[in-house]
Amino acid sequence: MPYVNIKITKEGASAEQKAELIAGVTRLLQDTLGKNPNTTVVVIDEVEMDNWGIGGEPVAAFRARQHSGD
Amino acid sequence: MPYVNIKITKEGASAEQKAELIAGVTRLLQDTLGKNPNTTVVVIDEVEMDNWGIGGEPVAAFRARQHSGD
Amino acid sequence: MPYVNIKITKEGASAEQKAELIAGVTRLLQDTLGKNPNTTVVVIDEVEMDNWGIGGEPVAAFRARQHSGD
Amino acid sequence: MPYVNIKITKEGASAEQKAELIAGVTRLLQDTLGKNPNTTVVVIDEVEMDNWGIGGEPVAAFRARQHSGD
Amino acid sequence: MPYVNIKITKEGASAEQKAELIAGVTRLLQDTLGKNPNTTVVVIDEVEMDNWGIGGEPVAAFRARQHSGD
Amino acid sequence: MPYVNIKITKEGASAEQKAELIAGVTRLLQDTLGKNPNTTVVVIDEVEMDNWGIGGEPVAAFRARQHSGD
Repeated sequence: MPYVNIKITKEGASAEQKAELIAGVTRLLQDTLGKNPNTTVVVIDEVEMDNWGIGGEPVAAFRARQHSGD
Repeated sequence: MPYVNIKITKEGASAEQKAELIAGVTRLLQDTLGKNPNTTVVVIDEVEMDNWGIGGEPVAAFRARQHSGD
Repeated sequence: MPYVNIKITKEGASAEQKAELIAGVTRLLQDTLGKNPNTTVVVIDEVEMDNWGIGGEPVAAFRARQHSGD
Repeated sequence: MPYVNIKITKEGASAEQKAELIAGVTRLLQDTLGKNPNTTVVVIDEVEMDNWGIGGEPVAAFRARQHSGD
Repeated sequence: MPYVNIKITKEGASAEQKAELIAGVTRLLQDTLGKNPNTTVVVIDEVEMDNWGIGGEPVAAFRARQHSGD
Repeated sequence: MPYVNIKITKEGASAEQKAELIAGVTRLLQDTLGKNPNTTVVVIDEVEMDNWGIGGEPVAAFRARQHSGD
């Protein structure tokens, strides 16, 4: 009966990759805690890059700074 | 002052249906717990079918399997 | 298959009242959108008063100000 | 290491305004609680007007009623 | 940089089991989507049984009914 | 009308600090986007250390490793 919400930046995850996430996290909850997979709900949110912040700035700026060695 | 988040699969709910959900859940909180409707906030998220998992698979696959009797 | 999260301030809602909320919102989703009640999940969060803000201040301070006519 | 989720109605917030929100809330958590900005995550959800309810009705209807003095 | 929220009923999950969930879901996101594990955040919410509804009733009542064959 | 959810590890934030967070984020939304502070809702979740994961492990283990220079 668990509910899992996965938030990732919107960068072209395919339907197959999302199905893998759903299968994998459902299996993990069954293996670790014995949770019933039939009632495990998984919701994936793909968030626009401008709407995701890390380190006090939008993720694109953050990544650019990491790569430049700043 | 309650906050309610309703997540449903994106399958064409109309503006009228969503207004009914908002009115209904606000009234329910008032009737059950005496919550002030004026400050009750309701947010509806309509989630792409590929991004909703149940039973370890995306909801479309899950439904197809239910209907086929598997 | 909907998922509903209801957040209220922690002020002594009884198990019976919470069961009413669960039943009521599940029925509302069935009546309004034809959602299957068997897979509708409802999670209620009861939030400490200090952790709930409205109008820029904790809810207890907000309510006191409303009642005093400020 | 905090996680902040900001939900606003979708009404044309610019990338610059969203970057200001990200910077501001990250700084607030550092100033108030000493949280490390490098691992503070902020996610902004812009919600369609039809999907946001307040006072028992969609936000557009609510605002129209406020302004008409009802 | 993903953020994952796992909600389960509060039924005595141990610190070790929760560490396994954290490790497992972080690895899954790395394997499936190449996400950086260092900035993957996982938050587990353990929800009181009275506060979790499924099938229109609190989870304890739902389970009792399933087992009785109703 | 915004809704803000702030999740932090439970490490003894005082009522005063939480009131500052509520005031600060409400003001930020007003200054940046012109949002009405009277209907801005802020909910703070304080999460047990065992239930917060970063870098694939519970936060206490992660911090210990950071400080040891691993």
